[in-house]
Amino acid sequence: MSLRIPYSELHQELKRVLLSLNFSAGRAEHCATIFAQNSRDGVYTHGLNRFPTFVQAVQQGLIHPAAEPERLEQNGALERWDGNLAPGMYSAWICMARAIALAKEQGIGCVALRNTNHWMRGGTYGWQAAEAGCIGICFTNTIANVTPWGGTEARLGNNPLVIAVPRAEKPPVVLDMAISQYSYGKLSTYATRQEPLPVPGGYDQEGQLTTNAAHILASERALPIGFWKGSGLSLVLDVLLTALSGGRSTAAITQAGAEAGVSQCFIALHQPNLHAGLIEEILRYTKSGAPSAAGEQVYYPGEQSYATRQDNLKHGIPVEEDIWRQVQQL
Amino acid sequence: MSLRIPYSELHQELKRVLLSLNFSAGRAEHCATIFAQNSRDGVYTHGLNRFPTFVQAVQQGLIHPAAEPERLEQNGALERWDGNLAPGMYSAWICMARAIALAKEQGIGCVALRNTNHWMRGGTYGWQAAEAGCIGICFTNTIANVTPWGGTEARLGNNPLVIAVPRAEKPPVVLDMAISQYSYGKLSTYATRQEPLPVPGGYDQEGQLTTNAAHILASERALPIGFWKGSGLSLVLDVLLTALSGGRSTAAITQAGAEAGVSQCFIALHQPNLHAGLIEEILRYTKSGAPSAAGEQVYYPGEQSYATRQDNLKHGIPVEEDIWRQVQQL
Repeated sequence: MSLRIPYSELHQELKRVLLSLNFSAGRAEHCATIFAQNSRDGVYTHGLNRFPTFVQAVQQGLIHPAAEPERLEQNGALERWDGNLAPGMYSAWICMARAIALAKEQGIGCVALRNTNHWMRGGTYGWQAAEAGCIGICFTNTIANVTPWGGTEARLGNNPLVIAVPRAEKPPVVLDMAISQYSYGKLSTYATRQEPLPVPGGYDQEGQLTTNAAHILASERALPIGFWKGSGLSLVLDVLLTALSGGRSTAAITQAGAEAGVSQCFIALHQPNLHAGLIEEILRYTKSGAPSAAGEQVYYPGEQSYATRQDNLKHGIPVEEDIWRQVQQL
Repeated sequence: MSLRIPYSELHQELKRVLLSLNFSAGRAEHCATIFAQNSRDGVYTHGLNRFPTFVQAVQQGLIHPAAEPERLEQNGALERWDGNLAPGMYSAWICMARAIALAKEQGIGCVALRNTNHWMRGGTYGWQAAEAGCIGICFTNTIANVTPWGGTEARLGNNPLVIAVPRAEKPPVVLDMAISQYSYGKLSTYATRQEPLPVPGGYDQEGQLTTNAAHILASERALPIGFWKGSGLSLVLDVLLTALSGGRSTAAITQAGAEAGVSQCFIALHQPNLHAGLIEEILRYTKSGAPSAAGEQVYYPGEQSYATRQDNLKHGIPVEEDIWRQVQQL
């Protein structure tokens, strides 16, 4: 990724393509911003690099550019929405915005969303909540790509989980993690380079734990974090959001054969008297131990993304040249 | 644990001891029930086996038997409470009950609790929510006992996380997991037996990942689940509940030197129209893959506890004979 382009150029180019696909001006602006910000923050897999796949899904009719998410049910500060297969990053934003509005009225709010599309980078909606002064918690299910503990076949999603907490005049703490130890993208990178994974990432075809990414890709037995623990966490997140939303579970998504019409959940909490000073104490303490190796340090979740953002805004956003050319020709 | 005693006998004995410590009849009944139920469900470490430590903490004045948790602040369905150092399993129950009441009025409710004591088994409050027809989410911080990714010293708590979802006329799905790969209790068991851990559980004193439990106990470098991922999850849970409750963080608990006055968070969701049929589909699908070895199977979170409960109610609760005798003499 030797080519670096200004944020505004990336944003403008993505917006141009979306307008050509008959996105409304507002919708194109919103979606282009999220894709461009994902690259800006260093989440390249869910920024520019994912954009051609998104365009293809729009062209195939899996994503409906003009659809609006709608509320199906309200039960106090708990609501149920249908995404109507609108662009996933649009519906996710609308639903987190609704959870934030509920939280500002009633302290806490939750929106369960069914029938939506991939939200790209989950951290987007954590930052959204934190920038509105709220704690944000959200999670999504996915197609089955992780093996449950005790089993040998992928039956669980990697079900990304996001938890964001605002700080006083500083970038928020934003955890954005899939429940798999490595994403398939990361496994492919290691397999291509023929490098061993830093820690075991799954099983080989003989059922042995391995750091060989190619063997894991062949077996399709990626490992959840913490073995039996991540296996349980992934399952319960899917149970929770499916039961609340009435939408597709990992089972239903997988049986349908394509990762579309997924289910998500957005929770926001608004505590006007958030104890911001205590957050700084925690971060200082956690970082105070000796590092594991020279030059290493303990980072809080979101810290590295924020540093990457500053660097990318200053020096331009690194892009894969072939993908950038491909998007320019769309 | 060859000795098995009836649930009623265990419960009665624990209640007798608590009454002798000047617990009120109601408070003694409540706390004895939670300890006895924890053993009944197979969580022996937080049932009878932990009872002598609890009694000692009461005698030392760390736990105030007659204290009542009190509400400090209400912001819609988000409340902040002080545990006033009452027995932890009492305040946790009161706060989850309050979250459930808020959820039944407004769909979702959250109580952040400061200045409380160890809640023993977190799953207790997940079951409590599920038995009231609610989804329950709760978590607590602890003294530092896990090493952050990139560091070499314990700076994070294992911060147990509980997520429970009710099912229609069946035992709920209840995830109850600490963010460490193994508890210190489990590490001690393996060290005593001189058996290797099934998967790496921490670092030795040279900083190498190891399955040697004795080496991890010596280094005090237990591993969070999923390496960098659990490290981030543990930190953000502590940040969230400290910022909401205004109570002690893992840093403050550790610096005070004893695990007392911890912070907790209880969230309940009440969706009258929970899609219970979809839960059964998910569980069937997850269990449908081939097992990893003959005789093994995929369990959903809470399934094995429930099976243990049935067995222990039928055949008596297994107790460590020396601990049982010790409690009988209290």
